[in-house]
Amino acid sequence: MLIASSAFLFTGSLGAEDFDSAYGAFMETPGASFFTVSNLWLCISAALVFLMHLGFSTLESGLTQSKNTVNILFKNVFIISMGILTYAFYGFNAMYPGFEDPASGYFALGSWFDVTASMEYMSADYNNYTWYTDFIFQAMFAATAATIVSGAVAERVKLSSFMIFATILVTFAYPITGSWKWGLGWLDAAGFYDFAGSSLVHGFGGFAALACVIVLGPRTGKYLDGKIKPILGHSMPLATIGVFLLFLGWFGFNGGSVLSADPYLVSLVFTTTALAAAGGAIGAIITSYLSLKKPDLSMALNGILAGLVGITAGADKIMPASAIIVGLISGVLVVFSIIFFDKIKIDDPVGAISVHGVCGIFGTLAVAIFSDAATFGAQLKGTLAICVFAFAFSLIVFYILKLTLGVRVSAEEEANGLDLSEHGQEAYPSFTSNAS
Amino acid sequence: MLIASSAFLFTGSLGAEDFDSAYGAFMETPGASFFTVSNLWLCISAALVFLMHLGFSTLESGLTQSKNTVNILFKNVFIISMGILTYAFYGFNAMYPGFEDPASGYFALGSWFDVTASMEYMSADYNNYTWYTDFIFQAMFAATAATIVSGAVAERVKLSSFMIFATILVTFAYPITGSWKWGLGWLDAAGFYDFAGSSLVHGFGGFAALACVIVLGPRTGKYLDGKIKPILGHSMPLATIGVFLLFLGWFGFNGGSVLSADPYLVSLVFTTTALAAAGGAIGAIITSYLSLKKPDLSMALNGILAGLVGITAGADKIMPASAIIVGLISGVLVVFSIIFFDKIKIDDPVGAISVHGVCGIFGTLAVAIFSDAATFGAQLKGTLAICVFAFAFSLIVFYILKLTLGVRVSAEEEANGLDLSEHGQEAYPSFTSNAS
Amino acid sequence: MLIASSAFLFTGSLGAEDFDSAYGAFMETPGASFFTVSNLWLCISAALVFLMHLGFSTLESGLTQSKNTVNILFKNVFIISMGILTYAFYGFNAMYPGFEDPASGYFALGSWFDVTASMEYMSADYNNYTWYTDFIFQAMFAATAATIVSGAVAERVKLSSFMIFATILVTFAYPITGSWKWGLGWLDAAGFYDFAGSSLVHGFGGFAALACVIVLGPRTGKYLDGKIKPILGHSMPLATIGVFLLFLGWFGFNGGSVLSADPYLVSLVFTTTALAAAGGAIGAIITSYLSLKKPDLSMALNGILAGLVGITAGADKIMPASAIIVGLISGVLVVFSIIFFDKIKIDDPVGAISVHGVCGIFGTLAVAIFSDAATFGAQLKGTLAICVFAFAFSLIVFYILKLTLGVRVSAEEEANGLDLSEHGQEAYPSFTSNAS
Repeated sequence: MLIASSAFLFTGSLGAEDFDSAYGAFMETPGASFFTVSNLWLCISAALVFLMHLGFSTLESGLTQSKNTVNILFKNVFIISMGILTYAFYGFNAMYPGFEDPASGYFALGSWFDVTASMEYMSADYNNYTWYTDFIFQAMFAATAATIVSGAVAERVKLSSFMIFATILVTFAYPITGSWKWGLGWLDAAGFYDFAGSSLVHGFGGFAALACVIVLGPRTGKYLDGKIKPILGHSMPLATIGVFLLFLGWFGFNGGSVLSADPYLVSLVFTTTALAAAGGAIGAIITSYLSLKKPDLSMALNGILAGLVGITAGADKIMPASAIIVGLISGVLVVFSIIFFDKIKIDDPVGAISVHGVCGIFGTLAVAIFSDAATFGAQLKGTLAICVFAFAFSLIVFYILKLTLGVRVSAEEEANGLDLSEHGQEAYPSFTSNAS
Repeated sequence: MLIASSAFLFTGSLGAEDFDSAYGAFMETPGASFFTVSNLWLCISAALVFLMHLGFSTLESGLTQSKNTVNILFKNVFIISMGILTYAFYGFNAMYPGFEDPASGYFALGSWFDVTASMEYMSADYNNYTWYTDFIFQAMFAATAATIVSGAVAERVKLSSFMIFATILVTFAYPITGSWKWGLGWLDAAGFYDFAGSSLVHGFGGFAALACVIVLGPRTGKYLDGKIKPILGHSMPLATIGVFLLFLGWFGFNGGSVLSADPYLVSLVFTTTALAAAGGAIGAIITSYLSLKKPDLSMALNGILAGLVGITAGADKIMPASAIIVGLISGVLVVFSIIFFDKIKIDDPVGAISVHGVCGIFGTLAVAIFSDAATFGAQLKGTLAICVFAFAFSLIVFYILKLTLGVRVSAEEEANGLDLSEHGQEAYPSFTSNAS
Repeated sequence: MLIASSAFLFTGSLGAEDFDSAYGAFMETPGASFFTVSNLWLCISAALVFLMHLGFSTLESGLTQSKNTVNILFKNVFIISMGILTYAFYGFNAMYPGFEDPASGYFALGSWFDVTASMEYMSADYNNYTWYTDFIFQAMFAATAATIVSGAVAERVKLSSFMIFATILVTFAYPITGSWKWGLGWLDAAGFYDFAGSSLVHGFGGFAALACVIVLGPRTGKYLDGKIKPILGHSMPLATIGVFLLFLGWFGFNGGSVLSADPYLVSLVFTTTALAAAGGAIGAIITSYLSLKKPDLSMALNGILAGLVGITAGADKIMPASAIIVGLISGVLVVFSIIFFDKIKIDDPVGAISVHGVCGIFGTLAVAIFSDAATFGAQLKGTLAICVFAFAFSLIVFYILKLTLGVRVSAEEEANGLDLSEHGQEAYPSFTSNAS
């Protein structure tokens, strides 16, 4: 019965008379109460997921050298801003057309998001949130894929090429795989399950990152004479702030993915999310202690994230005791994975490929392992399809960028740091202390 | 029917029998459900707005030199603490008497806030939140004006004089202009609209800041021999943390200003707020790239804030596509404004006058431009009235302080830094790193 | 009518048919609306309390030397992770069996928490939140006690021994005193009141800290030749971030302790909490200014925390005007207490004993002083019982650890910093600035 002709795009209020009266009537129905609290919870969740971008910013900054800090912060400011805008202009409607025919559920063209803010959408039978809530919650997810890549290519990627790549990835690639499941496409029809995106967000980002790192090569001096030279970060407090904020934001990332304020499901998801994160930390602490003989803070931090990525696909289906095990395994896995990638000279300064890619696949499979074994095939097929697509898409696009604009700064620029060479700014210009 | 004699001020619980029974009856009514979730949302919003004070603290610290960091943090701790208290003692009841006669709507005396926590106030017909919620949500806004000034006068203001000025500004001046609109005073009667305070909070703070900077003068060495010498900040990570926290807090600042959990309005406000912030970042990035030839992080950060300030007056009336344009324009505006003020030797270390003052005015006018052109006159009159009042009030009070106590530290104290001269403390006393 | 045999622990979903139908029926009842919003508020509160652990991490890091920062961050990551897990495995069911016979209310054995996620528990008559919500909210509190100790023993404690101690304290000791009141044990029967834990959380943590500091001794060089040598922290911005995040988290700590979304109570608690924090800051600023002649940032920060601890026991019973006074007194108290403990050579780098221990006792008594004088005896008995138990338990356990594993690093390790000696990592390895 409603609304939203293109006239609404630039002026005027949505308060068309028929919308107002239909909305007023809806708010008097018994379902309006649950609708209102659910809608509020998704808005708050969107804010929490937004905060994850600060988490990524500080984590990535902390684990890299101070001469590249401005560059990292700039990339993250750009990604979230660009991500929200392109998702409005194209991505949201590409990802959520809701394929009616699964056979056609491989690709949909996007468009400006704000064309069907209809009363039908706001109905307790259909959804428990408004069109705008749906958009803003999903928009906060969209930029995450590029943010994950940002960490893996840090300290040597050329800013302009990265900005182009990130824009293409978020705008076009992310909604394609997203629509396969959440747009009711072919993977949804195949019985694939991915609650909040172990594969659709984290696996996607992690394998996009892997492709980019392969094209880009390691940081200069990282692998010399067959030896691995650690290039340490510049601030463990920043990194720790990042992980705690990501942990916090995950309550919205997973909790909001309930898509309502259903008391049982929201509280179960909070519980499994926190238990898996705690399990991840303990798993990584023990593993790193046994293999490195020291209680390693970076590994503990990556363990938390690994546990969170691991539980994301099944946070609403995996019971608490299993959530702890999913976390523990993720925490073990991430340590070995980080060591492994370093050995094969895949230089990932923040461990993003291991945390998001490897644990993303594991988490997707964990839904079958810990909840319904019969779905193992569908889960495997789904996670591989998504990760292979992300990898291939990124490999092609980033390789084309390499051949054309170049994707890497010069050796001199890398040595001087990207802050000076790309931005002409330093992160700590007037910082003075009793440093000795 | 209720309650709250002065006996309640210091002892005893509100659990007077008649309140308890009236409240119990109210909670059984159909409206109680919407009241409860709306009240909760405003409490959560108050917490989000509170967090903006941390955002301001880290932003201001990051963009200034490390020798003045303790001073800046102290000022911000003082402002929020003082602000909450004076708002309880005087401001809240000065701002929200609810003028019954608009002709008298220019000034109201304040008083202790806790005198009418009445059942009447808690009623779905009248409000969707309790008296205490109203107070705490508005109290978190009140200190913002002084915080904005704090950034502009940083690195050379005398602490004691600033504390006195901030107290007077928050306690007496802010509620006056606030009451003109939100207390249903003369500007409200004139059809002026300012949803969450582009003028009433940000324009007010920005123009108070301008007056103080004029009285105070620039930092020593900033303008030498007709040249502008940049005085760089000490931590871009701190500044970035600040802007992300402010962005997050704005979901409460604007989202809470719906004054209920109305699903449509809250989600629309979240969407326009985020889109304007993203537009602001992109607008400032492009503008600064074209004019400075480098992608500038400080400008990107100020662009986000500019977009947020710009959308604040009409976040519930301006549609998403227009919100992006409001953001873009704000982002362009803030870059030129910062350059302009620097040229005319108005030294504002954090760009507060441009972000809050200039974009505050633009945002207020944007309501007319993008929603209802007929209101342009009322919007212009309102924003000018508020900004001129804030400027004049601050000019007079700060000038009197200059003549009496002095408002500026000595040249020697400024050179040594306010941390040592005002506090005898350093921000990073035992900090050691591999600094070279 | 329900569910949760041990089969649920590792596989399967809770979706047993009888649960599903009972839950579906419940969600149709009139009470479901209030239940849903209350449950959501407690989940959000759990997230806010979680964030307090980041607050503690950055506060403790900021107030200590940079050579011990990795160690501090690691301890805090470990504590929250371990705390959530042991609370699931043992603590929750030890703390909340709900003693039916107060005479037996001194001790209960714990067990895996997830055995009675029953429909009975989810009922507006009994509770306004699910079993999982109850767990996750309380789990976030549990680790706090150990975190408080962490600050007091910083810069010289042996990591392995501290980890063992913290685990024992959180797992076994905290639920014992917790059950005395919140598990409806003997103190509850005695009329003791402690709304959100001035004694049960903060007093407990503070006096556990005091015992550990006595066993551990001061940092080397702190008390030399009868003089007190200040050992300054390394980052006041980190400390300030910590206090603001703790203030924010306290809205969940106290606000969530309403245990529902009751509009009147939640908003009253938000108001008293904020007013007490503001009062604490002002009290500490004035006191430190009068005694130290400088406006001291550390004291202002501790004043905020003191005010928050002080109001915690009675945030729902103490009226706003009294809350300010509770805050002011706490702010004065914390300054004198910190000076006092330094004089008697109790070396507490972050002031945890004063903030949490001393103000925890005061806050518990403040419930009687400012709300119901007749309860003074019960309040005094309760707070002493809890603090003495925490002190004695910690003294014994930590002393046994001292005799066996040792609790202190060597003098050389202490001089080099715990980051290198315990972790082989630095907090700021690649940090470079224009430091001079």
